[in-house]
Amino acid sequence: MTHFTSRQQALQRDADDALAPLRAQFALPDGTIYLDGNSLGVLPRATAARVQQVVAEEWGQGLIGSWNSAGWMELPGRIGDKIARLVGARPGELVAADSTSVNLFKVLSAALKLQREDHPGRSVIVSERSNFPTDLYIAETLAREHGCTLKLVTAPEQIPAALDETTALLMLTHVNYRTGRMHDMAALSAAAHTAGALAVWDLCHSAGAVEVNLHRDGADFAVGCGYKYLNGGPGAPAFAWVHPRHVDRFVQPLSGWIGHAAPFTFVPGYEPAAGISRYLCGTPPVLSLAALECGVDTLLSAEPFGGMAAIRAKSLALTRLFIDLVDARCAGHGLSVVSPREEALRGSQVCLGRDEGGYAIVQALIARGVVGDFRAGDPKDGLPDILRFGVTPLYTRFVDVWDAVEHLVQVLDSGEWRDERFHRRGAVT
Amino acid sequence: MTHFTSRQQALQRDADDALAPLRAQFALPDGTIYLDGNSLGVLPRATAARVQQVVAEEWGQGLIGSWNSAGWMELPGRIGDKIARLVGARPGELVAADSTSVNLFKVLSAALKLQREDHPGRSVIVSERSNFPTDLYIAETLAREHGCTLKLVTAPEQIPAALDETTALLMLTHVNYRTGRMHDMAALSAAAHTAGALAVWDLCHSAGAVEVNLHRDGADFAVGCGYKYLNGGPGAPAFAWVHPRHVDRFVQPLSGWIGHAAPFTFVPGYEPAAGISRYLCGTPPVLSLAALECGVDTLLSAEPFGGMAAIRAKSLALTRLFIDLVDARCAGHGLSVVSPREEALRGSQVCLGRDEGGYAIVQALIARGVVGDFRAGDPKDGLPDILRFGVTPLYTRFVDVWDAVEHLVQVLDSGEWRDERFHRRGAVT
Repeated sequence: MTHFTSRQQALQRDADDALAPLRAQFALPDGTIYLDGNSLGVLPRATAARVQQVVAEEWGQGLIGSWNSAGWMELPGRIGDKIARLVGARPGELVAADSTSVNLFKVLSAALKLQREDHPGRSVIVSERSNFPTDLYIAETLAREHGCTLKLVTAPEQIPAALDETTALLMLTHVNYRTGRMHDMAALSAAAHTAGALAVWDLCHSAGAVEVNLHRDGADFAVGCGYKYLNGGPGAPAFAWVHPRHVDRFVQPLSGWIGHAAPFTFVPGYEPAAGISRYLCGTPPVLSLAALECGVDTLLSAEPFGGMAAIRAKSLALTRLFIDLVDARCAGHGLSVVSPREEALRGSQVCLGRDEGGYAIVQALIARGVVGDFRAGDPKDGLPDILRFGVTPLYTRFVDVWDAVEHLVQVLDSGEWRDERFHRRGAVT
Repeated sequence: MTHFTSRQQALQRDADDALAPLRAQFALPDGTIYLDGNSLGVLPRATAARVQQVVAEEWGQGLIGSWNSAGWMELPGRIGDKIARLVGARPGELVAADSTSVNLFKVLSAALKLQREDHPGRSVIVSERSNFPTDLYIAETLAREHGCTLKLVTAPEQIPAALDETTALLMLTHVNYRTGRMHDMAALSAAAHTAGALAVWDLCHSAGAVEVNLHRDGADFAVGCGYKYLNGGPGAPAFAWVHPRHVDRFVQPLSGWIGHAAPFTFVPGYEPAAGISRYLCGTPPVLSLAALECGVDTLLSAEPFGGMAAIRAKSLALTRLFIDLVDARCAGHGLSVVSPREEALRGSQVCLGRDEGGYAIVQALIARGVVGDFRAGDPKDGLPDILRFGVTPLYTRFVDVWDAVEHLVQVLDSGEWRDERFHRRGAVT
């Protein structure tokens, strides 16, 4: 049952939306309905000028002195504190640094060591086969090096039963990158703890997209991405968070100089900084961090309007509208709604399954200016090919959803996706 | 014996310098003699426009499609190939990625595994106590995790004798960050090999500064920095190189998705890419890589004028002039020349020792627009406090060296460095 039966209703909903003015913060390309912010967020308007300032003034004029005078050394922690506000962490607990993969390596290494010391018999990392591959790759290598094993379940419902006295860690991505299905962080963290395991959460598709409360929901370690919903730019630095009760227990193995207690004393022996700073490694990437900060600031701009709770409410309204319109208007076209219809299980994307032609349909939509992406199915996960549409409440409007589904209907009705040019492979998206 | 006895001679030398026109590529601040390019290279003029293009056009307009259409995926290898030309490596052997510390972790991990498999009895990493701390910190942690030990010599001359049947790796920074002393890469790599060890070289203070020929000189693994002589900007991505005979033997532990043989198939099992691409980990940091490429291009612009050989010749002429002028004009002021007077041992910086006041002298020079930096001494290394002056032949002129020493003479003669304001600590430099 669709909420809206006309485009006018969607426009009215946008007019009533308290978050709508925040869209002006973004430099959206004309003629594009961008539903891929879950892969690469849109450019905030402030970013170009800020990056230019860093390049031309701070680097160009200030040169080496800018490490102090421009506060470059504080960027990982300052931006970390801002991200912390989005994910239910406290100031001083989170740093922006490196990539998600590198940060996952750090936190998994520390978490494994912690468990292997406290509970030598625990040697299994439980995760999902459908987790984002880099998480599995990092865990696979670490498990091998630590004499552990990686146990992958094929369905989310199997997770609690997979936790037992051999489990060291439960490593999950909060919102699945392909299906948009969201785990219950509180319940699964609790299940991990009940089993004696620790919970490591990847927030790549959560931070800035859904409400996350790491402390309330019992997370032990978390990492996340800067270039999706945080709008930090392509390959933006990622982040790492460690619960205060664990953070000082171990030296993570990427023990570079910026994580040292006193990096500028240049002493030969490693002494880790107290707290999350020990999860820093090399020299902070200033240009990328400056862009990331602009992206994070766009999320924080929603705080006066209800912050992540308001963003989440709008996200659910947008995805619900998307699903309802697909139900109402795409029947008979072989599309299935893969994303959960239950709100508590749905992240900020809508994923549609189709047995064939999914790639070409996405390409035909992109040619019309509706940018989603395609993820190939995997019979082992029981997943069909997926057409993925991310909604990003700071810049996705209700009318965008209406128009996107209108284009989808036209692409399907006209059969234009059957054109050969839409079947050529090669796109990253 | 100084080469020049007047500023006019220095100006004439610049007028005769074939590399002099390349200085126009840099956005040097007015009124500054910048002798800290060994810490943070100067902004190339091309960088601001290129970064703006990446931000506003490639990201802002192209969005997710730019991973293909703007060639973002190729940046690590494309820039790697360019850096390869500066360090005697071949196309396809080097990637730009992550930080020096992270890359060192990758190559040390692989090198240790390789040796531990081929020669289980070898469990010692030999290095220098005066190596850059991050190298020691990374090695210290890895050694502990692999049941190895780190053996540090206090003088370069002790290195050959420290290599024996227990040595797994010789890990050295080619040019010492504090003293500017350069190792003989060929001789020490050969000594390592004769002892049955592998040679891991850190090129942070070499790449773009001195001639490096990794293949000719027997290196097994190498890493280096993008933000010093490569002018890539603050915290620019670093690089990693692995000799082709080793590169496919092991999976380095930071097995992120970009190092996968087929990252976009999103399969759950890690299969490393062939060659150096397996040393990639997370999503490439596009903004930072774009800036790095502009920096590397400034070095490549010297190829028609003799490339790194010409840069090295000018570097030696500049440092020799600096030393000669200090000898001739600073006698009686308690300065010692810590950098080697022998050319084959000297990198691209001049380091002056002083028992006291070194920090304040550097601050007084910075106040006059002569930017060098200070590194505290270490009695355990037999090193005094050091005033560090890097020369960067693409933008350092002979007259800059003349003027810098003139300022140094004035600071010392006048005693202005005794002013209290120059003694306050806090500068990163």
